[in-house]
Amino acid sequence: MKRVGIINVTGYAGAELARLLWRHPEVRLTSVSGRSAAGRPLGEVFPHLAPFDLTVEEELGDVDVVFSALPHGASAPALVPYIERDLPVLDLSADFRLREVDDYEAWYGRKHPAPHLLLDAVYGLPELHRAEIARTRLVAVPGCYPASVLPALAPALKAGIIEPDIIIDSKSGVSGAGRTLGLTYHYAEANESVSAYGLDGHFHLAEITQELSRLCEAPAPRVTFVPHLAPMTRGILSTCYASLAPGRLAAGPKARQEVRELYQEFYRNEPFVRVVEAPPQTKHTWGNNFCLLYPAIDLRAGRLVVVSCIDNLVKGAAGQAVQDMNLMLGFPETAGLQDLAVYP
Amino acid sequence: MKRVGIINVTGYAGAELARLLWRHPEVRLTSVSGRSAAGRPLGEVFPHLAPFDLTVEEELGDVDVVFSALPHGASAPALVPYIERDLPVLDLSADFRLREVDDYEAWYGRKHPAPHLLLDAVYGLPELHRAEIARTRLVAVPGCYPASVLPALAPALKAGIIEPDIIIDSKSGVSGAGRTLGLTYHYAEANESVSAYGLDGHFHLAEITQELSRLCEAPAPRVTFVPHLAPMTRGILSTCYASLAPGRLAAGPKARQEVRELYQEFYRNEPFVRVVEAPPQTKHTWGNNFCLLYPAIDLRAGRLVVVSCIDNLVKGAAGQAVQDMNLMLGFPETAGLQDLAVYP
Amino acid sequence: MKRVGIINVTGYAGAELARLLWRHPEVRLTSVSGRSAAGRPLGEVFPHLAPFDLTVEEELGDVDVVFSALPHGASAPALVPYIERDLPVLDLSADFRLREVDDYEAWYGRKHPAPHLLLDAVYGLPELHRAEIARTRLVAVPGCYPASVLPALAPALKAGIIEPDIIIDSKSGVSGAGRTLGLTYHYAEANESVSAYGLDGHFHLAEITQELSRLCEAPAPRVTFVPHLAPMTRGILSTCYASLAPGRLAAGPKARQEVRELYQEFYRNEPFVRVVEAPPQTKHTWGNNFCLLYPAIDLRAGRLVVVSCIDNLVKGAAGQAVQDMNLMLGFPETAGLQDLAVYP
Amino acid sequence: MKRVGIINVTGYAGAELARLLWRHPEVRLTSVSGRSAAGRPLGEVFPHLAPFDLTVEEELGDVDVVFSALPHGASAPALVPYIERDLPVLDLSADFRLREVDDYEAWYGRKHPAPHLLLDAVYGLPELHRAEIARTRLVAVPGCYPASVLPALAPALKAGIIEPDIIIDSKSGVSGAGRTLGLTYHYAEANESVSAYGLDGHFHLAEITQELSRLCEAPAPRVTFVPHLAPMTRGILSTCYASLAPGRLAAGPKARQEVRELYQEFYRNEPFVRVVEAPPQTKHTWGNNFCLLYPAIDLRAGRLVVVSCIDNLVKGAAGQAVQDMNLMLGFPETAGLQDLAVYP
Repeated sequence: MKRVGIINVTGYAGAELARLLWRHPEVRLTSVSGRSAAGRPLGEVFPHLAPFDLTVEEELGDVDVVFSALPHGASAPALVPYIERDLPVLDLSADFRLREVDDYEAWYGRKHPAPHLLLDAVYGLPELHRAEIARTRLVAVPGCYPASVLPALAPALKAGIIEPDIIIDSKSGVSGAGRTLGLTYHYAEANESVSAYGLDGHFHLAEITQELSRLCEAPAPRVTFVPHLAPMTRGILSTCYASLAPGRLAAGPKARQEVRELYQEFYRNEPFVRVVEAPPQTKHTWGNNFCLLYPAIDLRAGRLVVVSCIDNLVKGAAGQAVQDMNLMLGFPETAGLQDLAVYP
Repeated sequence: MKRVGIINVTGYAGAELARLLWRHPEVRLTSVSGRSAAGRPLGEVFPHLAPFDLTVEEELGDVDVVFSALPHGASAPALVPYIERDLPVLDLSADFRLREVDDYEAWYGRKHPAPHLLLDAVYGLPELHRAEIARTRLVAVPGCYPASVLPALAPALKAGIIEPDIIIDSKSGVSGAGRTLGLTYHYAEANESVSAYGLDGHFHLAEITQELSRLCEAPAPRVTFVPHLAPMTRGILSTCYASLAPGRLAAGPKARQEVRELYQEFYRNEPFVRVVEAPPQTKHTWGNNFCLLYPAIDLRAGRLVVVSCIDNLVKGAAGQAVQDMNLMLGFPETAGLQDLAVYP
Repeated sequence: MKRVGIINVTGYAGAELARLLWRHPEVRLTSVSGRSAAGRPLGEVFPHLAPFDLTVEEELGDVDVVFSALPHGASAPALVPYIERDLPVLDLSADFRLREVDDYEAWYGRKHPAPHLLLDAVYGLPELHRAEIARTRLVAVPGCYPASVLPALAPALKAGIIEPDIIIDSKSGVSGAGRTLGLTYHYAEANESVSAYGLDGHFHLAEITQELSRLCEAPAPRVTFVPHLAPMTRGILSTCYASLAPGRLAAGPKARQEVRELYQEFYRNEPFVRVVEAPPQTKHTWGNNFCLLYPAIDLRAGRLVVVSCIDNLVKGAAGQAVQDMNLMLGFPETAGLQDLAVYP
Repeated sequence: MKRVGIINVTGYAGAELARLLWRHPEVRLTSVSGRSAAGRPLGEVFPHLAPFDLTVEEELGDVDVVFSALPHGASAPALVPYIERDLPVLDLSADFRLREVDDYEAWYGRKHPAPHLLLDAVYGLPELHRAEIARTRLVAVPGCYPASVLPALAPALKAGIIEPDIIIDSKSGVSGAGRTLGLTYHYAEANESVSAYGLDGHFHLAEITQELSRLCEAPAPRVTFVPHLAPMTRGILSTCYASLAPGRLAAGPKARQEVRELYQEFYRNEPFVRVVEAPPQTKHTWGNNFCLLYPAIDLRAGRLVVVSCIDNLVKGAAGQAVQDMNLMLGFPETAGLQDLAVYP
């Protein structure tokens, strides 16, 4: 049994990682750290994690694998020592997601804390980078929005059936904003309300563009991405829109079948992506690692519309991280991730 | 005091109309009808309406103004007798919204019940058709989605600053689906979940296209419209996307100011449309007749993004209908509609 | 038109007061204050209040009536100057609710800031103290829980049909906790969850016991009160239990009718208390000033069970305060409070 | 691997059973039946169950263990053939819960379909009847409310520290009402609202009284039980109140410690009951089989107050049933039930 540590277990991504590791057959969570809660029993911070019988520490103890659920900026410096000791490291922050240091500095408005490591890091989306993940010691776990968006667009972009002119409208549950308090996430303000944010450019656009660009011929796709807050705890539904490239699909309703087949073929062997027969709801993924895709064609307007659902804390964070760890350490890819969604 | 009647008061739009008319200074609700509930006290069907002390009738009694909250198909035939008696009639169904009988029959899959009246009807969006509404006896109250979308796009389309190539992503509260039971609207299924629907074409696209076409030069805009269900009772947030037409706005951040001014100017005298300074949330309109607009520019992608919020039962149905009635009968336009939103 | 001021408009009770005063026919809200938000437009702090076009001030300007929505401890000192100038003052905090200074100090753990004023203050529950409210210059607006509980128990206690041995189980929406941030009220933690709190004694028990004692013969009733947090924004439902006093009601089902008649008689002329025919839901009071009561008899166990519903921000705070002001200033008691509930 | 069948998989209890059995190490779900959905893939009825790749059948195929999630009245007749074949049978309906046929007929208003089997059935609450469950072939899985209430009261009643005069106020999520449509469970009506029901006597009172009576000396306890609907999908919180019996606990705050120790001792070896240090929230049990108990003392009024939280679909139905099956078949009691709660 490998010993696993989680840095900053006190946020939602950290706690979800702990939950998923509880029944992982190959690893054991032996050490958790967290700044403000150091010294407190984990079960006091998160009662559902009481069965672990762990205490939150100032620093991780001796472990074989390290996850960081620190915020960006703080995560890279905390991970450098582990990376230098050549431990398998999975970073849930944004610090190692962008390959270009300039991109990082432009989007995050700060110097990168460890630019020399950027090219060693692998973007941890197994559906696009499985082989590299299996070979690396440093995985940058994708952001929650990109985790819902990239699987929705990859087959179409790669097959060239859409123009590289894309609109992404995402709706996220409130846990995506984390456990840090804020008026926007105060129950009485967030409940029974939908709002848009990030209209001047959301961090995750950088990842989305980087990864989409790798899927299509130059030039980089023109992407508009608008995230929204929906009054629910978990879940992201992304609706992705792009004009159909002329002449690639049949004219008329037959295009619908063609695009479904394209997606089914693309994900035939993926354990966690399912191309579904009816428009999915986020709740179909509550607590599990699936990404549900529903590709549709707007025949009137000549557009592809793909609907994608994930649980933002699982396939959008902790579950993706466990899937990446399984690949890095040579475990079965689905280990620890086999639970069905909790519905309703 | 004019006497008002509501046909089919037993749905949400009908009940909301009653609520709004409760304190209207110029009219009195004197008669309400409803098929299944005929004979029951209104306060038993809807306890919050008990103070009216009305009984639901099989047929309306003698009234001076008629609202119909019947479903499409049933509404037109029920209204024909009142129209023939030249009473002011406001139809909340879709029956008189489309000017072309072919459009109706294509979208609604049935013969139109009274095609000879289509050209007499006015599409009841005061911001676009105030003068005609004031002159007509038959108003087709817009659908809830169009009520949120058209104000968001009208200024930009009319000014020619966008290409007629539009994507509309709308998120609606569950009351939009009415009071008729269905598994999709069963609490345990709808709660904590977002889903997309209408991916093969939603009825409201027909109205949206019709009205947008009247705002721009030929050809008709190419519109993709995808509605979503969000886990809240009331509210619609529509996010509208279109590429900027070249050369119409300043390059760079100044375009943001220009577009705000365009919208502010367009709605300067509108009592119920507010161009707001920060992205709005649907909850800011809970129970009142405002449409809140936030126009933004995605400078990277060269797109206009407009966020629009309404309460689907007020500006999206019953409030719009009261505003139309005020215009038709020469009352102050805001009569009965002056309450602030209930927040939080 | 009297000019009204609200001290600390930036919490939910203050904002709700503003909302209700918007259309009050006899007064005008002319001044609002708030510590942290001083200098900001009210419409920036609360977008739904933008139509007031007021700025939050450090201190109230010249007004004829003062409401305080400050927290307890801070409210009394802020009000003393107005009380001394003999202005009508309505305090929504707990500072003037308890008649015995010792009670205040025992429950609130601090010296009372103005003990000499305690006996001048009137507990602002019109159903029990209408005449005194009309004569005083200082009203202590009841707490939200007592506002739901006292009307539920008063008729039974006064008529002596129950033993003075009472259990009160209340369920409140999250807005009752105010706008101050806290993990308990963080959306992702509060949503989809019910919890009990105040198990060692909640502040409001002191008011409840004080007022119930005035309704029955000595000795004071033995009361257990447990508040709960329910995942909704507004509303309190209190379920009140007490054993039937022997020999006061008919044996068997006839007791149900007797108790209904007792309640109906007690509230016959009350504008805001309704004894309803079927168990009410909190949502039937959303945004309005009603208290809905449903008295029932558990024939097997020989107990009275009364269910009471209010909107915690209206009858439980701001609406009650407006009703009190109407009485103090000689306006019609229902002025500004006539809106129906917003449902659904 | 034992083969398991679920009769009526199409409700929430049936679907939850399937979910829990998905990863059970000792059994395999091989057959599911359901009236209306017969012939449809299970994954079409419940997308989260698609990985089972089962089809809903008219009748169960060959299995080794049978669960019934049919409604009461229908369940017993459907189970009789299996009982006669001496298969292990677990009934989630109320049909075998009451030992007295008269009780059944009084509460359920119908003849019992198989009265001769009543005394063979064991009430499936392992914390009270573990040994009998292990020996029987017919388990009546407790109702959701009793599953939350009985563990809360058993230690106190058995130890004689409370008077047998009990008030139980329960708050349930809406999934407790099942998947059958109804206006009360329509999203727009149930959302943002709390209501009481069953005020004339709820079915579950019969089970509660039967089981509590077995724990205390005659006479049977006098119990008032009021269930409430809370706006959430899963979870029951029951608050149980009883006067302290004189002289059994220390006077003063020490009683709090004594009662905690009593409860901790009572549940020392229970795998699924936890006596917690702080008032629990229902969400701490989301998706798992725990019952969380928080016993408190109201020192002023001399009452015991016990707060109990469960997931109504797990410990309140399907999880309890799996725990019972484990006992019946000699599997480890926690098999298939080891997942942590999904939080937040």
